[in-house]
Amino acid sequence: MKAYLAEGIGTFWLVLGGCGSAVLAAAFPELGIGFAGVALAFGLTVVTACYAIGPISGGHLNPAISVGLWAGGRFPANKVLPYIIAQVIGGLLAAGVLYLIASGKAGFDLASGFASNGYGEHSPGGYDLRAVMICEVVMTMMFVFVVMGSTSKKAPAGFAPLAIGLCLTLIHLISIPVDNTSVNPARSTAVALFVGDWAVAQLWVFWLAPLVGGVLGGWLYRLVDDNQSA
Amino acid sequence: MKAYLAEGIGTFWLVLGGCGSAVLAAAFPELGIGFAGVALAFGLTVVTACYAIGPISGGHLNPAISVGLWAGGRFPANKVLPYIIAQVIGGLLAAGVLYLIASGKAGFDLASGFASNGYGEHSPGGYDLRAVMICEVVMTMMFVFVVMGSTSKKAPAGFAPLAIGLCLTLIHLISIPVDNTSVNPARSTAVALFVGDWAVAQLWVFWLAPLVGGVLGGWLYRLVDDNQSA
Amino acid sequence: MKAYLAEGIGTFWLVLGGCGSAVLAAAFPELGIGFAGVALAFGLTVVTACYAIGPISGGHLNPAISVGLWAGGRFPANKVLPYIIAQVIGGLLAAGVLYLIASGKAGFDLASGFASNGYGEHSPGGYDLRAVMICEVVMTMMFVFVVMGSTSKKAPAGFAPLAIGLCLTLIHLISIPVDNTSVNPARSTAVALFVGDWAVAQLWVFWLAPLVGGVLGGWLYRLVDDNQSA
Amino acid sequence: MKAYLAEGIGTFWLVLGGCGSAVLAAAFPELGIGFAGVALAFGLTVVTACYAIGPISGGHLNPAISVGLWAGGRFPANKVLPYIIAQVIGGLLAAGVLYLIASGKAGFDLASGFASNGYGEHSPGGYDLRAVMICEVVMTMMFVFVVMGSTSKKAPAGFAPLAIGLCLTLIHLISIPVDNTSVNPARSTAVALFVGDWAVAQLWVFWLAPLVGGVLGGWLYRLVDDNQSA
Repeated sequence: MKAYLAEGIGTFWLVLGGCGSAVLAAAFPELGIGFAGVALAFGLTVVTACYAIGPISGGHLNPAISVGLWAGGRFPANKVLPYIIAQVIGGLLAAGVLYLIASGKAGFDLASGFASNGYGEHSPGGYDLRAVMICEVVMTMMFVFVVMGSTSKKAPAGFAPLAIGLCLTLIHLISIPVDNTSVNPARSTAVALFVGDWAVAQLWVFWLAPLVGGVLGGWLYRLVDDNQSA
Repeated sequence: MKAYLAEGIGTFWLVLGGCGSAVLAAAFPELGIGFAGVALAFGLTVVTACYAIGPISGGHLNPAISVGLWAGGRFPANKVLPYIIAQVIGGLLAAGVLYLIASGKAGFDLASGFASNGYGEHSPGGYDLRAVMICEVVMTMMFVFVVMGSTSKKAPAGFAPLAIGLCLTLIHLISIPVDNTSVNPARSTAVALFVGDWAVAQLWVFWLAPLVGGVLGGWLYRLVDDNQSA
Repeated sequence: MKAYLAEGIGTFWLVLGGCGSAVLAAAFPELGIGFAGVALAFGLTVVTACYAIGPISGGHLNPAISVGLWAGGRFPANKVLPYIIAQVIGGLLAAGVLYLIASGKAGFDLASGFASNGYGEHSPGGYDLRAVMICEVVMTMMFVFVVMGSTSKKAPAGFAPLAIGLCLTLIHLISIPVDNTSVNPARSTAVALFVGDWAVAQLWVFWLAPLVGGVLGGWLYRLVDDNQSA
Repeated sequence: MKAYLAEGIGTFWLVLGGCGSAVLAAAFPELGIGFAGVALAFGLTVVTACYAIGPISGGHLNPAISVGLWAGGRFPANKVLPYIIAQVIGGLLAAGVLYLIASGKAGFDLASGFASNGYGEHSPGGYDLRAVMICEVVMTMMFVFVVMGSTSKKAPAGFAPLAIGLCLTLIHLISIPVDNTSVNPARSTAVALFVGDWAVAQLWVFWLAPLVGGVLGGWLYRLVDDNQSA
């Protein structure tokens, strides 16, 4: 139970910090943090949460990581669903808190997107569905690959939260313009349910592509790994 | 005594570096560091101070951390007040030094805020009191949660200053627009006393909310922790 | 074979992440990540790939590193060419994936450069060939110097991926305006072959200068090292 | 001799990377890295050089560090002068290389400052001499304090290059607007000699203040340290 609670709190932090920085701070006039600041924020939620709860739950914070680690032989099948449920609940709570904060400013409007992921006219840069699918699959694949490698027994101890968090920063530095970057269905779901409408209609993409990418990442790492243990 | 002196020096560095970057460098024309640079500066004061004085005093640098660690069972009650006093004195000295530097530029005016925290018309983005209270409580709660987790015996040794400092960077990336980010009553007090007026009138918020959040963070970590020792 | 595959995947990640951030996110209106964000992205590809595959292949991801480590007495001659081939193939695959993503936005045009390296009129800041040659040689020399030093037996264990990745960030912070920064012939080749034309015509510079710099870096470190072992 | 060579190479890297990023990349139209990017670059020169040469020379790269460590009882008096000479030579070589690169762009002019430090009309933000003196003394004092603390036996092993480099980043985030940030007489001298004129006339400030600050920093740490060994 403590592991599920930890996953929920960690994903709460990921969504509050990542989407929060995007909603509250990215486009502040003159001094805003921009996409680079949002990328850093998403990564730091993982760095900080993983140092805090890594020893308790592993610090997945993301259904695609849980599924990817299962595909990579590192996570038992019977824990995947409870982890995903805890992650989605934690993310939804974060979106609720973010809504309470963001709505404290006159003129706030959920219709401006609330950091939801999207393709086509809802992509920040206007990228089409094919580009978004490829991007999400490849980014999540490499994300899980880095998680698998940096948490393997061969890797130097203690650095994994840093490597994994900075990997999420990197992924955002590349792909926010494409679709606001998901690679995490819990994060996508949390804000989409508040926005409704197109955000919910496009949500399937941000479950399908990250989960496929996660499985591919788990398999890809097995190709380069000499022993499957971790 | 060395621990109190170390806390004072560390908090001096936190206020000088964090508020200093905000006052001196954030809005420099064209090349200014913006909110993201200020966020990085606040975090790096903690990273650097904690590697320097962590072994001497623990490197709290913040009344909300000291109170939160007490609530979490990690810090003795009788040291809380002396730590807070040392932190406030260190912060005030930093604000004094910052004033001496900042006033060396023609046109400097304390009325522009001196990096004070505020709500309503004194919030950078115009956020109301409710949003500011929620934000400070939740951010400080998660800050103390990360401090508790990353300094637990289970966490990899040596990484805590990095995790904690980068957590403060993350918190600023999210919430500078809301209220200039406190999560630290000593930091708020230091600059508010120089500005006086509204900054002092609103100061109660930046004691109450971070201390409540700190206590909640200490309790929250105990919920996920199997053993209370550290 | 696993080492060659790992090098290919790692260089795939370097090119996709580094050039991807440059093509997709650097110049996004208002919120773009700029050269600093691209610099961070390039560095983080190395940080993340090296924590993931360092124990498998060493994580060179760059012909100039492989050649430089050979010159420094750290890498066997007979592996240099296979490593370089794997790196170039991995980079080309990344450029292909990047093309698929980038072309999902209306108005995308390879003629805008696709993050290719260049001098003269193809230098971002209009730097001439002499400046570009000096810059690439010196930057690659210091890059290999840092690789040699941070992976020596004397250096603290586990930090090398961080030092090496952040060195690549630093190099980009300095030299993107000069020639878009290569210090890596595989990275230069990957995107140049997609652009063709001037990018291919100038490609010799971004093989010659980094390889010369890499050899010099390997030698330079031997001057300060007391024992050649690693 | 190897230690002196290492100090020279390290300071070469500090000046080339720090001043190079300022001269070449800070003010690039639209995409430039700004003061925050320059701050990061200065810090990363120290991070990378210290992981590479720390075990060889200690990685001071700065006369104020050598003098400060002497004042703190960590560095023998008879090595201070040779270290400073090596640092100044390394810095001058870097300024020469930077000149060769920077002059490869049409319109380059040393009169634009070449990243020199200055006060009054030569301060980026127009800060007067008093502000600059206070700033340099306090920043260098805290810099040496962090060096002393993070390299003490009590501090976690291996993290010092990160703490020290990020401290230099922090110092630049705060104080570039004040005087372009020195805290390092070798760095100031290297570029001032190329600019001549006012930069040389004001150079005494950037020897005096950092050296005073360095000594104060060494003493300050002794106040909080229980044992002087390291």
